[in-house]
Amino acid sequence: MNRLYTNTNIKVIAFDADDTLWVNEPYFRRTEEKFYALLEGFLTGHNIERELLKTEIGNLALYGYGVKGFILSMIETALKVSDKKINIDIVERIIQMGKEVLEEPIELLDDTEQVLSALKPHFRLVVATKGDLLDQQRKLHKSGLGHYFHHIEVMSEKAEDDYLKLIKRLDIKPEEFLMIGNSLKSDILPVIKIGGHGIHIPFHTTWAHEVVDTNFEHPNFKSADKIMEVLEWIG
Amino acid sequence: MNRLYTNTNIKVIAFDADDTLWVNEPYFRRTEEKFYALLEGFLTGHNIERELLKTEIGNLALYGYGVKGFILSMIETALKVSDKKINIDIVERIIQMGKEVLEEPIELLDDTEQVLSALKPHFRLVVATKGDLLDQQRKLHKSGLGHYFHHIEVMSEKAEDDYLKLIKRLDIKPEEFLMIGNSLKSDILPVIKIGGHGIHIPFHTTWAHEVVDTNFEHPNFKSADKIMEVLEWIG
Repeated sequence: MNRLYTNTNIKVIAFDADDTLWVNEPYFRRTEEKFYALLEGFLTGHNIERELLKTEIGNLALYGYGVKGFILSMIETALKVSDKKINIDIVERIIQMGKEVLEEPIELLDDTEQVLSALKPHFRLVVATKGDLLDQQRKLHKSGLGHYFHHIEVMSEKAEDDYLKLIKRLDIKPEEFLMIGNSLKSDILPVIKIGGHGIHIPFHTTWAHEVVDTNFEHPNFKSADKIMEVLEWIG
Repeated sequence: MNRLYTNTNIKVIAFDADDTLWVNEPYFRRTEEKFYALLEGFLTGHNIERELLKTEIGNLALYGYGVKGFILSMIETALKVSDKKINIDIVERIIQMGKEVLEEPIELLDDTEQVLSALKPHFRLVVATKGDLLDQQRKLHKSGLGHYFHHIEVMSEKAEDDYLKLIKRLDIKPEEFLMIGNSLKSDILPVIKIGGHGIHIPFHTTWAHEVVDTNFEHPNFKSADKIMEVLEWIG
């Protein structure tokens, strides 16, 4: 058996939420596609995509992650690429599309519940996610997974400092912390850097801003194809 | 001396942030005034005010508290009261006004720092606030008050259940918890209800949605005119 963590003292396992526990990015992608379609005639889809990403990244420091900032960035991009020539109906449509994303049902990824249920008796489980506080709490509630978790930690950023603060609040040492998530950049690299453990479970869709080179190796790091593999590694 | 809390075992003092530690509501009010001015010609200021509040409250469950939801509700209200006849420039102006609110400097309320400095050696101090996670963290950082606090707790709602969760995470009993804030509805009543203590410090401007009747008396409750009075009551 290749049980990575049999000899370690992991106490807390933190799960990223979006695209680790449940589907998220495809809802954004679908909305983006609708958005490009609304604006066809002004620019090609590819250029609108580039402008939207530029606007989103430009607004990130001010708006942070989450659907509301996404809606505002879509409106801002629509004004910009159309040189303020869009019909006002499009603004209304964008707001409506944003509300639809907020109201999407939760679609759990395969085997999520089985894995949480197997780990819960042995570890303190938390959700550690970026995004809007209210969005994430609502999604956890709708997911029906809330009872598996000690608590949900919504973080405005997932950099080394943010994980250090989280670990301090959890009252554990970095080597007692394992993070599981789909973003190498946000969920894994900063955690490994501060001495924690990471399991990366790539999701088929990743936001361009989160993409990094995946040639990464480290003794505290594992890459999994599916969440079920986590159980093979944790003794 | 009228030291309310000499004989109690308060361990944690939580401060609301906006309009308790620093000025906030007047920035929103100023932005609202500009918003009414943008739309004059469509409805009278009073009616636009009513429509905006209605839209904000209607969106509260979906957007939560904070500036981004406020911007989106202003845009939605503008479309509605103008029957989509506003110029698209107004949408751009609203987004800009919202960004300006996010970038406002922090103006501390009188004596805030002196009070925190006097309490810090004797109590665990936390910030317990509603609103956008990123906004509130940024404001605390800009305020320079961060080092007085054990941590900042951004809450999506301030109802009894939310305080019970907070108290559980703080690992204290309700009677060891004192909340200080400007909203009787959000900061005081739910805390008293679960067995905690509250000091209400009214601020001259309160959002209509937070206003409640202030004829409230309870042994665990005090009303103060200024934050300095807190020091007179806490032994």
